[in-house]
Amino acid sequence: MSRISDVAQRAGVSTSTVSNVLNGRSDRMAKETLERVETAIRELKYRPNTSARQLKTGHTPLIGLLVPSMANPMYGFIAREVETLAQERYGFRIMIGNTYRDAAKEAHFFEDLMAHGVRGVIIISSLVDEQHVEAAAERGLVVVSYDRRATPDASGASVIDHVTVDSFESSRIATQHLIAQGHRRLAFVTPSGRTMSRNEKIAGFLAAAKAAGLEASAQVVEGLPVDEYGDSMMSELGRMQAGLIARREQRPTGVIGVNDLLAFGLMAGFRDAGLSVPQDVSVIGIDNVFLSTLMHPAMTSVRVPVPEMAQVMVERVMSRLADPSIATQEFVFAPTLVARESVAPPRD
Amino acid sequence: MSRISDVAQRAGVSTSTVSNVLNGRSDRMAKETLERVETAIRELKYRPNTSARQLKTGHTPLIGLLVPSMANPMYGFIAREVETLAQERYGFRIMIGNTYRDAAKEAHFFEDLMAHGVRGVIIISSLVDEQHVEAAAERGLVVVSYDRRATPDASGASVIDHVTVDSFESSRIATQHLIAQGHRRLAFVTPSGRTMSRNEKIAGFLAAAKAAGLEASAQVVEGLPVDEYGDSMMSELGRMQAGLIARREQRPTGVIGVNDLLAFGLMAGFRDAGLSVPQDVSVIGIDNVFLSTLMHPAMTSVRVPVPEMAQVMVERVMSRLADPSIATQEFVFAPTLVARESVAPPRD
Repeated sequence: MSRISDVAQRAGVSTSTVSNVLNGRSDRMAKETLERVETAIRELKYRPNTSARQLKTGHTPLIGLLVPSMANPMYGFIAREVETLAQERYGFRIMIGNTYRDAAKEAHFFEDLMAHGVRGVIIISSLVDEQHVEAAAERGLVVVSYDRRATPDASGASVIDHVTVDSFESSRIATQHLIAQGHRRLAFVTPSGRTMSRNEKIAGFLAAAKAAGLEASAQVVEGLPVDEYGDSMMSELGRMQAGLIARREQRPTGVIGVNDLLAFGLMAGFRDAGLSVPQDVSVIGIDNVFLSTLMHPAMTSVRVPVPEMAQVMVERVMSRLADPSIATQEFVFAPTLVARESVAPPRD
Repeated sequence: MSRISDVAQRAGVSTSTVSNVLNGRSDRMAKETLERVETAIRELKYRPNTSARQLKTGHTPLIGLLVPSMANPMYGFIAREVETLAQERYGFRIMIGNTYRDAAKEAHFFEDLMAHGVRGVIIISSLVDEQHVEAAAERGLVVVSYDRRATPDASGASVIDHVTVDSFESSRIATQHLIAQGHRRLAFVTPSGRTMSRNEKIAGFLAAAKAAGLEASAQVVEGLPVDEYGDSMMSELGRMQAGLIARREQRPTGVIGVNDLLAFGLMAGFRDAGLSVPQDVSVIGIDNVFLSTLMHPAMTSVRVPVPEMAQVMVERVMSRLADPSIATQEFVFAPTLVARESVAPPRD
């Protein structure tokens, strides 16, 4: 097994430089030096000794990761990226929990993390009210939040890092894509129960429709609240809503799902109702999970840059664990449209 | 927050009976008593105090969970079930890791678990050689293995619990279903790189073909090894193999994928090649992930009883942590065929 001195020698730097990289203190390091160290770590398959680390830093080499449900392929993908990075780059393991977007479950998980000596946590939640998250941060947890913007606050600075895709933009570019194909009657389908990202997606949808003078024929269709316990429920909701939409007289011809799972359900539901996608109705999802390419027709979606976002999340946790004085930030990533075969010009 | 005495009062039992349930010592308890205690725990939302537990039992209330990759919807589903049960029923949290079916990564994870004071672990692996798993068990870890049978051993008893579906049977009933529909030219598609469950599925496929006198026209198609890093790779392999199968002169009319992800790829690949499922070729998957119902056509698959298996896995870890003298066992669950629309009689 390689030692830290082997890495230092291979990279031509001091062991303290390697240690700085391992502990996330690379902000002021020359990019080229950082790359040399990272290459040496990779080539030598160097892994930090967790026990020694714990003795030195005084906290457990674990990161908490809260997800609504691991059975949702999008969260599974994020969890895999976070775990792999934390482990391979920093030697940290992951304590994971399903929280079903329930604030009480989230708060309980924070308690348990602190009881286990865990100091860093990544939370995927997007609940509108994040007071319980802020309370945990004020008690000493280093918190990085995924999928929501910072809460606008009179005092300015948040106690939490926020890493998110621009959800307003995700939905806006999806809507614009439908409009560019000639669609005039549009629908955006979402479960009821507002989260920050759902609110922003609805706003992006309405903004794109308004910009094209289509506000009168653009509808937000809110279904039942989805208990994220059953990940099949998101797609079942889409399937049910498609059945209702298909029966309308002035049926929308372009429909956006709040996420890919719901949009998979929309496609299945339109088929159930005897409509062809995209000949009778066009469908777009958001997330671009790999399963989109396996749908029939392959589903147009909006890419969320998960690997890039996972890297920032892990780096922020590690940097702020190493230096609690670092100021929190908001990182907003740009989505991109991935056009496939579920969108075509409308017939009428 | 409820206390253990509240649970005891509600269930009409002593606190030590509740404690026995919480610690997995319910083997000799009357079923009706156990149910009363479980109902009271649920109704009062009782959660054990983890710190007190740790003081008393001397080990950390964490279970290790090793999965090939969390981004695979099947493993995400299992992980969610395990985590929810461990947390809600026993107040245990989960330390999770992606091991990409790599024995070195698995062994390294065991080291880290022990360094963290974790004593119980559930491993999803199915590697043919499980010596590194046995070594960890001999050093004191309570190990429950998912998705493989016990290694036949001269000495008889394993140091590991094994919880698995009958993989031979999964594949046998899928093959039999195709034969019953009239298919005579059959293929079973799998990545190369043998795991225990893949070996058993191949054997089940060949046994069903032989029983119907079709051994000459039943082929095992082994693709490239799939690095489970990319979960899209499993479906991409299926897609590629379907393209190759479609070009054969005496093309199989009934094709089984080693799992649903590969079978999703088969369906997409046959479409790419201009073949219709099920009119030109029938496809069956194994696992019955919820996405099967969203495919077009909805995909026939073989159900693996994940919630039931997750429950046994968690209970076994907890029972054996509480009483290391309990003998290990092998639990083999029966699969069931779920017929949908991707199978029809062959044309010729």
